[in-house]
Amino acid sequence: MGNFVTCCRSFWCRAKNPDVRISLPLVCFVWQIAMIILFGLFVRYDDESDAHWSEHKLKNNITSDIENDFYYRYPSFQDVHVMIFVGFGFLMTFLKRYSFGGVGFNFLIASFGLQWALLMQGWFHSLVDGQIKIGIENIINADFCVAGCLIAYGALLGKVSPVQLMVLTLFGITLFAVEEYIILHILHVRDAGGSMVIHTFGAYYGLTISWILYRPKLDQSSLNGSVYHSDVFAMIGTLFLWMFWPSFNSAIADHGDGQHRAAINTYLALAASVLTTFAISSLSAKKGKLDMVHIQNATLAGGVAMGTAAEFMISPYGSLIVGFICGIISTFGYLVITPFMEKYLKIQDTCGIHNLHAMPGVLGAVVGAITAATASEGVYGHEGLVNTFDFKGKYAGRTPAMQGGFQAAGLCVALAFGIVGGVLVGFILRLPFCWGDPADENCFEDEVYWEVPEDEESILPIL
Amino acid sequence: MGNFVTCCRSFWCRAKNPDVRISLPLVCFVWQIAMIILFGLFVRYDDESDAHWSEHKLKNNITSDIENDFYYRYPSFQDVHVMIFVGFGFLMTFLKRYSFGGVGFNFLIASFGLQWALLMQGWFHSLVDGQIKIGIENIINADFCVAGCLIAYGALLGKVSPVQLMVLTLFGITLFAVEEYIILHILHVRDAGGSMVIHTFGAYYGLTISWILYRPKLDQSSLNGSVYHSDVFAMIGTLFLWMFWPSFNSAIADHGDGQHRAAINTYLALAASVLTTFAISSLSAKKGKLDMVHIQNATLAGGVAMGTAAEFMISPYGSLIVGFICGIISTFGYLVITPFMEKYLKIQDTCGIHNLHAMPGVLGAVVGAITAATASEGVYGHEGLVNTFDFKGKYAGRTPAMQGGFQAAGLCVALAFGIVGGVLVGFILRLPFCWGDPADENCFEDEVYWEVPEDEESILPIL
Amino acid sequence: MGNFVTCCRSFWCRAKNPDVRISLPLVCFVWQIAMIILFGLFVRYDDESDAHWSEHKLKNNITSDIENDFYYRYPSFQDVHVMIFVGFGFLMTFLKRYSFGGVGFNFLIASFGLQWALLMQGWFHSLVDGQIKIGIENIINADFCVAGCLIAYGALLGKVSPVQLMVLTLFGITLFAVEEYIILHILHVRDAGGSMVIHTFGAYYGLTISWILYRPKLDQSSLNGSVYHSDVFAMIGTLFLWMFWPSFNSAIADHGDGQHRAAINTYLALAASVLTTFAISSLSAKKGKLDMVHIQNATLAGGVAMGTAAEFMISPYGSLIVGFICGIISTFGYLVITPFMEKYLKIQDTCGIHNLHAMPGVLGAVVGAITAATASEGVYGHEGLVNTFDFKGKYAGRTPAMQGGFQAAGLCVALAFGIVGGVLVGFILRLPFCWGDPADENCFEDEVYWEVPEDEESILPIL
Repeated sequence: MGNFVTCCRSFWCRAKNPDVRISLPLVCFVWQIAMIILFGLFVRYDDESDAHWSEHKLKNNITSDIENDFYYRYPSFQDVHVMIFVGFGFLMTFLKRYSFGGVGFNFLIASFGLQWALLMQGWFHSLVDGQIKIGIENIINADFCVAGCLIAYGALLGKVSPVQLMVLTLFGITLFAVEEYIILHILHVRDAGGSMVIHTFGAYYGLTISWILYRPKLDQSSLNGSVYHSDVFAMIGTLFLWMFWPSFNSAIADHGDGQHRAAINTYLALAASVLTTFAISSLSAKKGKLDMVHIQNATLAGGVAMGTAAEFMISPYGSLIVGFICGIISTFGYLVITPFMEKYLKIQDTCGIHNLHAMPGVLGAVVGAITAATASEGVYGHEGLVNTFDFKGKYAGRTPAMQGGFQAAGLCVALAFGIVGGVLVGFILRLPFCWGDPADENCFEDEVYWEVPEDEESILPIL
Repeated sequence: MGNFVTCCRSFWCRAKNPDVRISLPLVCFVWQIAMIILFGLFVRYDDESDAHWSEHKLKNNITSDIENDFYYRYPSFQDVHVMIFVGFGFLMTFLKRYSFGGVGFNFLIASFGLQWALLMQGWFHSLVDGQIKIGIENIINADFCVAGCLIAYGALLGKVSPVQLMVLTLFGITLFAVEEYIILHILHVRDAGGSMVIHTFGAYYGLTISWILYRPKLDQSSLNGSVYHSDVFAMIGTLFLWMFWPSFNSAIADHGDGQHRAAINTYLALAASVLTTFAISSLSAKKGKLDMVHIQNATLAGGVAMGTAAEFMISPYGSLIVGFICGIISTFGYLVITPFMEKYLKIQDTCGIHNLHAMPGVLGAVVGAITAATASEGVYGHEGLVNTFDFKGKYAGRTPAMQGGFQAAGLCVALAFGIVGGVLVGFILRLPFCWGDPADENCFEDEVYWEVPEDEESILPIL
Repeated sequence: MGNFVTCCRSFWCRAKNPDVRISLPLVCFVWQIAMIILFGLFVRYDDESDAHWSEHKLKNNITSDIENDFYYRYPSFQDVHVMIFVGFGFLMTFLKRYSFGGVGFNFLIASFGLQWALLMQGWFHSLVDGQIKIGIENIINADFCVAGCLIAYGALLGKVSPVQLMVLTLFGITLFAVEEYIILHILHVRDAGGSMVIHTFGAYYGLTISWILYRPKLDQSSLNGSVYHSDVFAMIGTLFLWMFWPSFNSAIADHGDGQHRAAINTYLALAASVLTTFAISSLSAKKGKLDMVHIQNATLAGGVAMGTAAEFMISPYGSLIVGFICGIISTFGYLVITPFMEKYLKIQDTCGIHNLHAMPGVLGAVVGAITAATASEGVYGHEGLVNTFDFKGKYAGRTPAMQGGFQAAGLCVALAFGIVGGVLVGFILRLPFCWGDPADENCFEDEVYWEVPEDEESILPIL
């Protein structure tokens, strides 16, 4: 029996060897080649990005090139793109010696993820005669899909290898696409900014994986903290996320008032978050000193929480209230819940995604459900109500109250996919392959995966 | 009598206690709750962001969603938003140990300011049946309004507490809205990029406050300077301001040629500023060495000075001339006027806003007045002249020459509001409340208001 | 004879004096004044940025302001603008002590270059009745033109004076405009993202100059490398280039499907580049450690290589293949070709532009030629084919196969202009004027041209 335990232990807990010289290139090459083959088989331009556009215009009585969806959505797309690569990337540079890994691995997995997302989402949403037709909306959705995996990365920052991250992304995108199909198409739920689909799913997916990959000896690490300049770098990420969040929540909202309203609501909720974050951060510390971790993260909670309701008629003060509450909850999370989770639930959450994505995401879903359930023709107008909730075709008979119920059901689906998917992928990542993950004492250390230049400081003591 | 003096002194010059643990949260909470209540009472969506948009389209014969003002202005809005938060924020990270305060407090006061601006500007400009109807143009204007206060912050950087900044913003936005109403509506002045309304007002507001809060013992501070990396961070702010200034000056210009021309003029003026800034900076130093302070700031002066005339037919070479002159004046200001002001006028101007905003702003107003006064139907065409200067309704009889006069009057109003408002707010900020402002020896030091991470460098000597 | 040699040597190899106090201001002032005069003589607003726009609308049956080209291209313009100033600028901050020079001189020469480009390109492309009419497309093209010179700067980073850079830019823009006229107008070649016109030309121009300015004693320099934080700064440049490259390649593509398709193709190629760059970088190092130089540069190669074919129907998987190959070639270049070129060809290439711009640019031209030659009405539709390749007017008889040949000819022109122009300008820059270029031991050192703030670190040893 003891023998069996030892055997198991040696199976599960092999000595860590963070050499990824074979595994990382292999994964990158094989998967990229697979992408090329699958794109060759399936992916084509849609009507608006194909050279037949001029014929399409004629056939559909479109009088001007400006009606091409490109002009409605491209500015928002570019803002979302900045959020994915600079926003998430730089937000994760805050650690003392893991800035390369933060921004670099974010870059890698997002670049892979968006290709796989175009395929997965395409098969579910854009399949026409066996071919995926892509246009501007598809590449926005691919970026959204990637966001879910980058959120999960936040919980694992500094503790996993790039190969593990690639696997996490492969499964994350796959799960996302299925979950999104169920929520948006089968349940016909509205979630333009993805409070449920992106944030709730991504956060619980990451937290569950982190729980399974728990490292008991990690807490002494002196590297799990910031230095002065790395905190300033992280503010670049924070601000680009904060500023462009109105574009995130409005990017795939309805043309016209839908995009317009989503942008305004998100703008307001984020502003309110900032004030309550500063308030709670100051209130909680000796002499009222502010904590950069709160400012970098909790200020964004308002954007997460407006993901579902942004395009609804939540009204400007409603947006402010949501932001107000989220700033408080999220900062409180950093102060109390993250330490609690690490100590008692054995969940190590490097970036605090539970506070920034999980709780505000769930809150956003609830706000969305309530706002949907209380919608009325008086507020929206008949046509406005039909357009906003897409009560058309086989959903023509749905009432706002029913819609509210379906919205709540959507939240449950997102939670289930996040947690079950996280358990599954967590165990896969513990399988005794050559994952190349670092030993506990090498966590949060770029030296492991990067050629780090020698700093002047390190030469100094010799003098 | 001596007793009275001592009494006064002890009243005005109490020992500084930079603890903001009660005051900052209090201000944030109370004001944010006030915002929610006021938004609840007053603020609603406008026709283009309301779900009744489809009915509005029908009623007004609008055939396409692309005619929603959102699509005309949203890309410019996002650029302006970046200028406010990353531009101003990172420009103020240049100090050795005040990067957190620079970018962080900028974030706080801008987030509060934009909410208050929506209300104040709304009451003056967008009140319909007792309700403020907001759309994309309102949120651009709110960002503009905030810019005035952030300029003022530049003069005070490192010397005031966040609570004082919140008060400065509250009054600044209020004064701004009144001043703007007088200039744009009562005087019917054109000022799309705000040379007067934003820059002149904001700069004199901040300089006057700095004059009243003069700290005689400050000049020895070794912290009032940069380090290598903080200068690179500040260049992020500079460049985003510089690049997006064409969007700033064109954001609320007329649809079509107005926005188009404003962007081109600003683009050209800024390019010319860069060359003359480099020239004067090099000319003024031993061995021709360039000074980062000049490059970070004076290169932007062309954008400030085109704030009024950008949408006029100033012609491309006119824009270059304005930029040419401003680069010289502004760099010269850093070399001569800032030290003079500090020594003889007792005005301490941390970021040199007198050189970047005050002088170019005044110059911009003068350029605008001259360009307006010399406008003619030959150059603009009849309809072009009417559209550009909005000579419609009760202003139909105004001539360009008259308009030039009103433009000049607008400058006087901006100056008066800046200086009188600054005196008022300066004295308020000297009242013996628990402002939490730092002692002279703690100025320009993040340690006072932030949990600053220990740097590796500070551990080094122990080794 | 020995006398003559000595004389020559003293003529060509005078002791370096990096004082630019007279020369830099002189160049800046004289050239800026020349710009103002030339703009005064030649440059006016075009129909869409002139106040006569409302009359123009009426005359041309344009029903809405949104049809102004400004709204089609301004968001792309701003993205391109960010690439030029933040993208190129911050990419060049990677050196230990040359961040000021990287971002600062980039700022200077781009600001001059865009003015000169408006004139040069205007004379060739936009001359109407002796006047250059400028609008949004002109300022995008000016930014493009500048990009060519900034690429060349990449090869010379740290080794030349700002005065030399201004001269390099003056000639570079001039050569560019001529080369572009020959390629785009005389040969009627399509090159929307400038694989040939911008990247191939710029890279060979810079490399040839670097070859002529070869410094044999440079290689020992310990300053020719990065530190931890400078690598993170450089990632800002990388990411903004990477994210906005779809805007670069689509900025002046055809309205509608042209811009739409160009953005999607570039997006995909770039994503594929990232994966193969990570793969090769990891494969080539001991323990699979990644090299920041590769990640900062080779990930961008896909964008360069899509410059010509982006607007063609290369199909999504075609874009992935191009990106796949470029990531490999470019990383391989950093590993093998750059050291080879330095050792055997005497070409010192600080930023490795041969790997990032030269090779992918040539490849992009070849890909473009093949894609054009194989175009068919089956794939494009009749009208699509005519629009995409502009087979109109006197080019109505051209077939895709002929177009392919002309595309290949365009590449030869770009190469010839780059190399011959580089030889010419290289010798000019070696003429014994007071260029102010640094001595070999002062290369890669900001101290030479900038007032560098004293760092805390430098004070440390005294303690």
